[in-house]
Amino acid sequence: MAVEILYIRGDFMIKVGILGAGGYAGAELVRLLLQRDDTQIVFLDSKDSEGISYTDLYPHLNGKIDNLMTSMDISNNEYFQMIDILFCALPHGLTQQAVKSAFEKDLKIIDLSADFRLSDSSVYEKWYDTEHIAKEELKNAVYGLPEINRETIKKSRLIANPGCYPTSIILALYPLLNEGYNPKNIIISDSKSGVSGAGRGLRDGNIYCQAAENINPYAVGSHRHKPEIEEQLTKIARSEVKIMFTPHLVPMQRGILSTIYVKNEYGVSQNKLEKIYLDYYKSEPFIRILTGGLLPKTKSVSGSNYCDISLKVDEDTNHIIIMSAIDNLIKGASGQAVQNMNIIMDIDETKGLLQEAIWP
Amino acid sequence: MAVEILYIRGDFMIKVGILGAGGYAGAELVRLLLQRDDTQIVFLDSKDSEGISYTDLYPHLNGKIDNLMTSMDISNNEYFQMIDILFCALPHGLTQQAVKSAFEKDLKIIDLSADFRLSDSSVYEKWYDTEHIAKEELKNAVYGLPEINRETIKKSRLIANPGCYPTSIILALYPLLNEGYNPKNIIISDSKSGVSGAGRGLRDGNIYCQAAENINPYAVGSHRHKPEIEEQLTKIARSEVKIMFTPHLVPMQRGILSTIYVKNEYGVSQNKLEKIYLDYYKSEPFIRILTGGLLPKTKSVSGSNYCDISLKVDEDTNHIIIMSAIDNLIKGASGQAVQNMNIIMDIDETKGLLQEAIWP
Amino acid sequence: MAVEILYIRGDFMIKVGILGAGGYAGAELVRLLLQRDDTQIVFLDSKDSEGISYTDLYPHLNGKIDNLMTSMDISNNEYFQMIDILFCALPHGLTQQAVKSAFEKDLKIIDLSADFRLSDSSVYEKWYDTEHIAKEELKNAVYGLPEINRETIKKSRLIANPGCYPTSIILALYPLLNEGYNPKNIIISDSKSGVSGAGRGLRDGNIYCQAAENINPYAVGSHRHKPEIEEQLTKIARSEVKIMFTPHLVPMQRGILSTIYVKNEYGVSQNKLEKIYLDYYKSEPFIRILTGGLLPKTKSVSGSNYCDISLKVDEDTNHIIIMSAIDNLIKGASGQAVQNMNIIMDIDETKGLLQEAIWP
Amino acid sequence: MAVEILYIRGDFMIKVGILGAGGYAGAELVRLLLQRDDTQIVFLDSKDSEGISYTDLYPHLNGKIDNLMTSMDISNNEYFQMIDILFCALPHGLTQQAVKSAFEKDLKIIDLSADFRLSDSSVYEKWYDTEHIAKEELKNAVYGLPEINRETIKKSRLIANPGCYPTSIILALYPLLNEGYNPKNIIISDSKSGVSGAGRGLRDGNIYCQAAENINPYAVGSHRHKPEIEEQLTKIARSEVKIMFTPHLVPMQRGILSTIYVKNEYGVSQNKLEKIYLDYYKSEPFIRILTGGLLPKTKSVSGSNYCDISLKVDEDTNHIIIMSAIDNLIKGASGQAVQNMNIIMDIDETKGLLQEAIWP
Repeated sequence: MAVEILYIRGDFMIKVGILGAGGYAGAELVRLLLQRDDTQIVFLDSKDSEGISYTDLYPHLNGKIDNLMTSMDISNNEYFQMIDILFCALPHGLTQQAVKSAFEKDLKIIDLSADFRLSDSSVYEKWYDTEHIAKEELKNAVYGLPEINRETIKKSRLIANPGCYPTSIILALYPLLNEGYNPKNIIISDSKSGVSGAGRGLRDGNIYCQAAENINPYAVGSHRHKPEIEEQLTKIARSEVKIMFTPHLVPMQRGILSTIYVKNEYGVSQNKLEKIYLDYYKSEPFIRILTGGLLPKTKSVSGSNYCDISLKVDEDTNHIIIMSAIDNLIKGASGQAVQNMNIIMDIDETKGLLQEAIWP
Repeated sequence: MAVEILYIRGDFMIKVGILGAGGYAGAELVRLLLQRDDTQIVFLDSKDSEGISYTDLYPHLNGKIDNLMTSMDISNNEYFQMIDILFCALPHGLTQQAVKSAFEKDLKIIDLSADFRLSDSSVYEKWYDTEHIAKEELKNAVYGLPEINRETIKKSRLIANPGCYPTSIILALYPLLNEGYNPKNIIISDSKSGVSGAGRGLRDGNIYCQAAENINPYAVGSHRHKPEIEEQLTKIARSEVKIMFTPHLVPMQRGILSTIYVKNEYGVSQNKLEKIYLDYYKSEPFIRILTGGLLPKTKSVSGSNYCDISLKVDEDTNHIIIMSAIDNLIKGASGQAVQNMNIIMDIDETKGLLQEAIWP
Repeated sequence: MAVEILYIRGDFMIKVGILGAGGYAGAELVRLLLQRDDTQIVFLDSKDSEGISYTDLYPHLNGKIDNLMTSMDISNNEYFQMIDILFCALPHGLTQQAVKSAFEKDLKIIDLSADFRLSDSSVYEKWYDTEHIAKEELKNAVYGLPEINRETIKKSRLIANPGCYPTSIILALYPLLNEGYNPKNIIISDSKSGVSGAGRGLRDGNIYCQAAENINPYAVGSHRHKPEIEEQLTKIARSEVKIMFTPHLVPMQRGILSTIYVKNEYGVSQNKLEKIYLDYYKSEPFIRILTGGLLPKTKSVSGSNYCDISLKVDEDTNHIIIMSAIDNLIKGASGQAVQNMNIIMDIDETKGLLQEAIWP
Repeated sequence: MAVEILYIRGDFMIKVGILGAGGYAGAELVRLLLQRDDTQIVFLDSKDSEGISYTDLYPHLNGKIDNLMTSMDISNNEYFQMIDILFCALPHGLTQQAVKSAFEKDLKIIDLSADFRLSDSSVYEKWYDTEHIAKEELKNAVYGLPEINRETIKKSRLIANPGCYPTSIILALYPLLNEGYNPKNIIISDSKSGVSGAGRGLRDGNIYCQAAENINPYAVGSHRHKPEIEEQLTKIARSEVKIMFTPHLVPMQRGILSTIYVKNEYGVSQNKLEKIYLDYYKSEPFIRILTGGLLPKTKSVSGSNYCDISLKVDEDTNHIIIMSAIDNLIKGASGQAVQNMNIIMDIDETKGLLQEAIWP
């Protein structure tokens, strides 16, 4: 079917298109963008849901965006010149084709897949077991973690939006490692994610009765976010960082909690550590450092773009425990994508992202 | 302790105080009001949490409203003259004292309790098993369902914010009954509520392991919302309406679904019925009539001020089934309270309430 | 692959085979049968999981039944002569072929599908939109609700194991209707089911993030259990009974709660009604009548073969409300199947079924 | 009120009494004991629920044990001579009084509290911030982990039933440490528990809407199970073991998953490690070692007395990750208590404990 072009008007500042709009990250993008008065969604692409109204798939948006989804021919990039920003929420592989095609046009790309997160394509090819076909574009990609790469993001055309687990882990370790406290021992991140992290795909692990009343580890030591985390941490620490990363599935919809263990090789004190973090993040609108013994909960950030972090120096075991909580679909995906959009469009970075978490 | 007065500035249009801010309805009020640029919260009262920071109780609001709660002496109404709107989320009984005290001052009151919902104090006294001590004020109260009483609300000083179940049921029946299709048979409402409807109180039924993986009816035929529903429906129908109302507790946090059975005594057709509802609610910003066989889900409205309604004429049994879904804490409590505030302050009724539902 | 025949030994009393062992009903059958010392599972058939170890699919049974599933050729009935009881948990349609084939051999069949529940094949064909190809066998089928048809079940070779919703509704209405209190008005059953009722199939509604924090009605007035319920109730009442049946999906794994509304046309009192029910079910091992204002909870029966029933005569609306709770996978499926097996094998009907519910 | 003595008959082998029967551990004990034909419950004590029928508190046991709970005067030990086994599920402190009193009589005691788990009363006094008043009895206590102390349990009169977290962690580390692979580095256990671990107490963290859709760490580095774990591991390893123990609360009812990180200082291979564990536990009826890449899930053990363990040697980080799953109320509390009862009564250790897990 022909691509359905949504209500084009002249008075919007930002025109966006969304590839892969049918998944949960796509739906969160749409929800966040619909709250704004400066952004227009020009098209909604979906392979699996072509011809279906968006609100049939996401009835909570009923009355707001009842347009049909279309399955776009991504090799034909004529539609890309209608937009300022392309959000790409496609599976890996397909992403590279879309980005290649879009990159030829005068627009900016925010990619939510893993395809442009690893700077070394051979590492990508090893972990994702597929050839990288957009090596030229990869050179232009910036890792889109605003708290770390804000200035580079501003000047970039291709933003690799970070993975959900990596966001929770890198933000939790950035001040420590950047300050020079890079442990010679490995870092352990025991991470727990709600089921939406696995998407809306029809897979056995996503079934209600398989996930409810259950917690289990998966992909122990072999999750594809491991090289992404290690590359970023190594860059921050300016020396090689190794991570033991263990993801777990938790019976809840949203949220990631990472509990991170670092040997306290430098004897940092609780006070010193909190001071470092408060200082690093004092101007960050979406990072909250919890002190006074408060610990993060995913519920405190669920529905918001916040990352809550707390720190514990355990003298008995000489370890630092860093805990962080995010909403995997917002700060871990679509909220961060919008934050990146704000940065590259040079508007207020918090625009459309100040909605508080929902409790209960 | 002295009442903590929060950041008074001169440039806000609306100053509000909240009595009983520690419960979930209080917390939703605070969250909704914090999103606005025209409203200032002047005080947060809580008996149980005096001296505790609001964000210790509700860490999702960390950084936004870290002020202390105070337990106010409601007989002393000096603080009430500092505000334009008093939101009262106290238990019944206590509410009447507070309203009596506040009513003497020049402010408007939106009461989230049941104390001013029943126009006949003797009915109140029977169902709530306690004397009504504010009978004069009761005469001035308006039942705050904007879709029905908008014009009266505008002129009122005391709004009785409807109960959560009644909101879901009355909105579902209003067009039918107002149009004159009042069945001689009783109406049955089988209603299902998430656990937040029972508040944050420390009661056995609220315990996670008692509520999870469970559904159960309670207060069958004896729930205190029954007289409230019957009074309003009777008024709408202009003849006595009796309801068999069965509430159930469902293992979810938010949401009410009411499945309502009405004998189709007038032989209304599916088309006719949908036309009536679409017509009645065509200008209502928060009512969505689902057609084409779509059925309401609480998930579609969770986190929003919407009420989704669908209609089914079942010819085999000659019944009309009306289904409605709301978020009990928003359209069923605090969102509706804010909607009422907007109306009595004569500003855009949707102000601060257009946040979409959260999915998943 | 060849059919994997499980550890045949001579000292078992009962040899069973399971067709469609991969689903939740199949898994519950296996679990219940593994607890016994008198039953041997001879084969486990599964189309979708051929060649997979049963405990790969159901790791809770690890160490107990690690055999492979095989996809059996049901037209070849040689394996059927190895067993005494065939449990058939196949999708409808396929079931008829299997039953036709098995019926030729000397064994008894307990069918968990809907294919032999409706005595009139034309009603079946209308509701299931497919031809019935085993009309001869259908004549021999008995509706396997032991509390009503125990004596006929004993003598039968083909048991149509009742649907989950019908079990909860028919048991709740049997004493009332059999006693002659058949209302001229329709009966309304508002029923709520946990997600396992929809099986382990990969469908969008089964996805965790679609079902969690949500309640919704479905198939209003058109669910396929309606004719099954009406046929049985009509038989019990000895005059036509019509039912308005509204199923809902509840965010829990197991359990059905039916809330049933009957006009109290005969003016039955609370005492009288409870007496009738206590009397009817006084010897039934799996029916518990709750009195003294106690109301059923699905949690009270979850993991057990019980059906809890309570009764409420509401004088204000002149209605009887009957509430019943079962575990949909046990009394609503596999537990009832085992109960039927016990009956037709003429052993203690409660054998292997006395496990209490799990709380919490 | 007088102590209600339950149906004493002469033909039971084992007479038991339960102190603190109102909590979840008490209820699981009752459920497990009711399944047996050799055990009689003589009394049910509860401070908070005196005079209430047990099935009012636990309606799943309706019809099985409708007796009243009584609040016993534990200083009066006349009732203790009526029983063979006293199960004590009281809060700490109170436990010591009860055990002191019971110890004078000729019976055996299985204590589910923490009061007799730490051999050094000064360690107890430090972590529990209260004096230990039963130091003599403490000398006679045996740590009741059958897989490790079976022989000593047999000869003991006072069994300190292990904590839930310690059970999951000690069983996971026992073969490694006992085999001599005691790392010089600390061991990290990141543990996750369902909400029933916090009991049925009316505390804010137990409230459904606080626990649902949430995961959070608590008591980081300061949980009272830490010294219990360290004492047992040190004993096993025959040299000091330090543990960094981080508990988390997970939105599910039952289950503990511990993910344990040990530096692979001895270069043990995956094969070697699995071989050690398979060997150590080959005769254990309740330990299942998962191999072939299978990972534990709490769902696989929920409702059963199993502990599932899997092992992963991660060469990239030179770490061993050991994961274990138990049902916190069964193997982590009441199932283990029954296992200990079987051992000290010298009957089949698995008696009454072979019920499979419930899935889903």
